[in-house]
Amino acid sequence: MVLRADARLRAAVVGTGLIGGSVLLRLHAAGVDVTGWDPDERTRRQARLAGVPTADRLADAVADRDVVFLGGPLPTLPATLVEVAAATAEHCLLTDVGSTKAELAGFAAEQGLTSRFVPGHPMAGTDRAGLAAALPELFTGAAWVLCPAPDGLAAFRRLATLVTDVFAARVVPMAADRHDAVVALASHVPHLLAGALAGAAHRSPLREAVLALAAGSFRDGTRVAGTPAQRTGNMLRGNRDQVLAALDQVTAFLDELAGALRSDDADALTARYAEAGAARAELAGRPYDEQVRSFPPGAEPAEVAWLHGIGAAGGHLSGCRDVAGTVSYVAHLPQT
Amino acid sequence: MVLRADARLRAAVVGTGLIGGSVLLRLHAAGVDVTGWDPDERTRRQARLAGVPTADRLADAVADRDVVFLGGPLPTLPATLVEVAAATAEHCLLTDVGSTKAELAGFAAEQGLTSRFVPGHPMAGTDRAGLAAALPELFTGAAWVLCPAPDGLAAFRRLATLVTDVFAARVVPMAADRHDAVVALASHVPHLLAGALAGAAHRSPLREAVLALAAGSFRDGTRVAGTPAQRTGNMLRGNRDQVLAALDQVTAFLDELAGALRSDDADALTARYAEAGAARAELAGRPYDEQVRSFPPGAEPAEVAWLHGIGAAGGHLSGCRDVAGTVSYVAHLPQT
Repeated sequence: MVLRADARLRAAVVGTGLIGGSVLLRLHAAGVDVTGWDPDERTRRQARLAGVPTADRLADAVADRDVVFLGGPLPTLPATLVEVAAATAEHCLLTDVGSTKAELAGFAAEQGLTSRFVPGHPMAGTDRAGLAAALPELFTGAAWVLCPAPDGLAAFRRLATLVTDVFAARVVPMAADRHDAVVALASHVPHLLAGALAGAAHRSPLREAVLALAAGSFRDGTRVAGTPAQRTGNMLRGNRDQVLAALDQVTAFLDELAGALRSDDADALTARYAEAGAARAELAGRPYDEQVRSFPPGAEPAEVAWLHGIGAAGGHLSGCRDVAGTVSYVAHLPQT
Repeated sequence: MVLRADARLRAAVVGTGLIGGSVLLRLHAAGVDVTGWDPDERTRRQARLAGVPTADRLADAVADRDVVFLGGPLPTLPATLVEVAAATAEHCLLTDVGSTKAELAGFAAEQGLTSRFVPGHPMAGTDRAGLAAALPELFTGAAWVLCPAPDGLAAFRRLATLVTDVFAARVVPMAADRHDAVVALASHVPHLLAGALAGAAHRSPLREAVLALAAGSFRDGTRVAGTPAQRTGNMLRGNRDQVLAALDQVTAFLDELAGALRSDDADALTARYAEAGAARAELAGRPYDEQVRSFPPGAEPAEVAWLHGIGAAGGHLSGCRDVAGTVSYVAHLPQT
C-alpha cells in the first residue's frame, strides 16, 4: 500500500476528461479503490459503462478519500479545489492535472491549503478530448511535474510515491512559476506556432494545394492545431505572461533565421540550424546518471532546494520512500 | 513496359542520397534496368553492397538510358543537368528530385531542354540523410510534383506514367513557380518555425528543463530541425522570396494569436484556433472524386491548363495512358 499501510488506498478523480479520465482508468486498472465524478452526466454514464465506479454527486465521490485528483477545464480548478477541500478531511491529499501551475498554487496558498495540495501537471495528452479518448497508459514514462512547497513536503512525498509507483511516470519536481516558464517554451509556444501555420494555410489563396502537398514538416508542425480550440485558449491564457515572453525568444531566433535567408548567408543559416539541431539531438535520447539521496527530519529547506535542482537540471525522480520521517529519493540526472 | 514497348526500360539515377537513393532502390525493386551513380565513392560502394548496379563514372551510368533522375544537393542540379543532357540522347527523358523548381525550370528552358526535362519533386523524406537512410517505399502514396510545360507534354506524360505505375505516388501537376509558392507554406516555413523553436530552446537558460518537459507539441514542432543543417539551408535559399513571403503570412497570423492572448480575448483566440483547426481537420483525410479526362492531339494548351487546375485544386493523377497521341488521365479531386 502506498498511502495507508493499513488499508487499501482510496482515491477520487474529479473532472474525468482526457487527462482526469486517464488518471481514473489507470488508478482503477492498478486496483486502487477509486471513484470518478464529472459535471457532465454523459461522461459519468460513459465511465460507468466502462466499469469504473462513478458517483452522481461530487461530495459522494470525494467522501473519506486519501487522495483526490482535480481535472477539468483550467478556469474551473480554483472553485473545484475549494469545493473538494471543504468536502474532504485534513489528511486527504489534493492535486491537480492542469497545464499551468503558478496561478492555482498561489490560490491554494491563499486558501491555506499548501500542506495538502500539491500542484501537478502530467505532461501527456493527445489531440482528442474527453473520457472516450482517455488511456490508462497515457502517463507511462511521461514527465509528471509536482511542485514541492516547503510546508507541503509530506504531501509532495506521498504523491511522488504514488505517481512513480502507480503511473510509472517520471516525477519532475519544480517550483510552480518555474514550471510555467518551462512549459511556455516546451508546450505553449509550440501550440501558437502550430496555430499560426495551420491558420495561415487556411487563409492562403493556395490553401487546397498547400494541404495536398503538406509533407511531414507541415503535418508535424500543425498537429496540436487540431486540439480543441477552447482548451488551447484556456491553456495559453492561464500562462499569458510566460507564453508571451517565450514567444519573444522564439521570434527573435526566427528573425535571425529570416535575416540570414534574406541576405542569402549560407554560413549563418547553417550555424543557426546547427544550434537548433543540438537541442533536437538531445530529445532523441539523453543518457542519465542515477543517484539516491536521503533527507532526515528537519532538513526540509535542503530537500526543497535539492528537488528544485533536479527539475532545473532536466532530471526526474523514479521513486520515493518515507521511513519514519527520513525520505529517500531515486533521482536521474542527464549526463553532462 | 512503360516507356519502350519493345524493350525493358533503362533508367539511371545520378546522385543517390536519401531521395535519389530511394528512387534507385524502388526502380531496382520494380525490375527496371537501373544504374546509379554518386560523386561519393563510399556511397557507390554502399549501393553495390546492396546489390544495386552502380557505375564508377557518370557517363557510364547514363549512357543509352531512357530516363535519368537527377538527385544530389540542390545547388549542384544545374551543372548535373547540363552534364547528363550532354551525355544522353535526345529521346532520353530527364527529371530531378529537388525541393524547389522555378530556378531549375528556368535554367533548363535557357538550355533548350524543356522538351525532355520535366522538373519534379517527390514530397517525401525523413530527418536522416544519405543512401543508408533510403527506402524503396518512401514515395508510395506520397505527392510527387511534376511540372508540365506546353512544349514538354510528351515528356510529362511519359514521366507521369512511370511515377504512378512504378512508384505508386500521387502525381501533382503544377507550374514550377506555383510549386515553389505552395511548398514555401507546406514545407519551408515549417522548417523555419522548427528551427526557431529548437534554437530558442537551445539558447534558453531553462534549456535542460525544457528538453526534459518537451511534450508532443515540442517534439513534433521541432522534428525537422534535426535534418542536416546544410540541406535545410540549401532548400530555403533555393526558394528565398517565396519563403519570406509565406513567412510573412504565418507571422501575421501569429501576431493575431499573440494579440488576442495579450488582451486576454478568449473569443478571438478560440476563433483563430477554429480557423487553424479547419485546415488541420482536412489533413486527416479528404474525400476525393475520380474523373477520367482525355486530350486528342493538338489540344496541348487545354491539357496544360487542365493539369494546372488539378494541382491548384489540391488534386492529383493516379494514371496516364498515351495511345496514338491521345492521352487519358485518371484524376482525383477533393470533394468541395
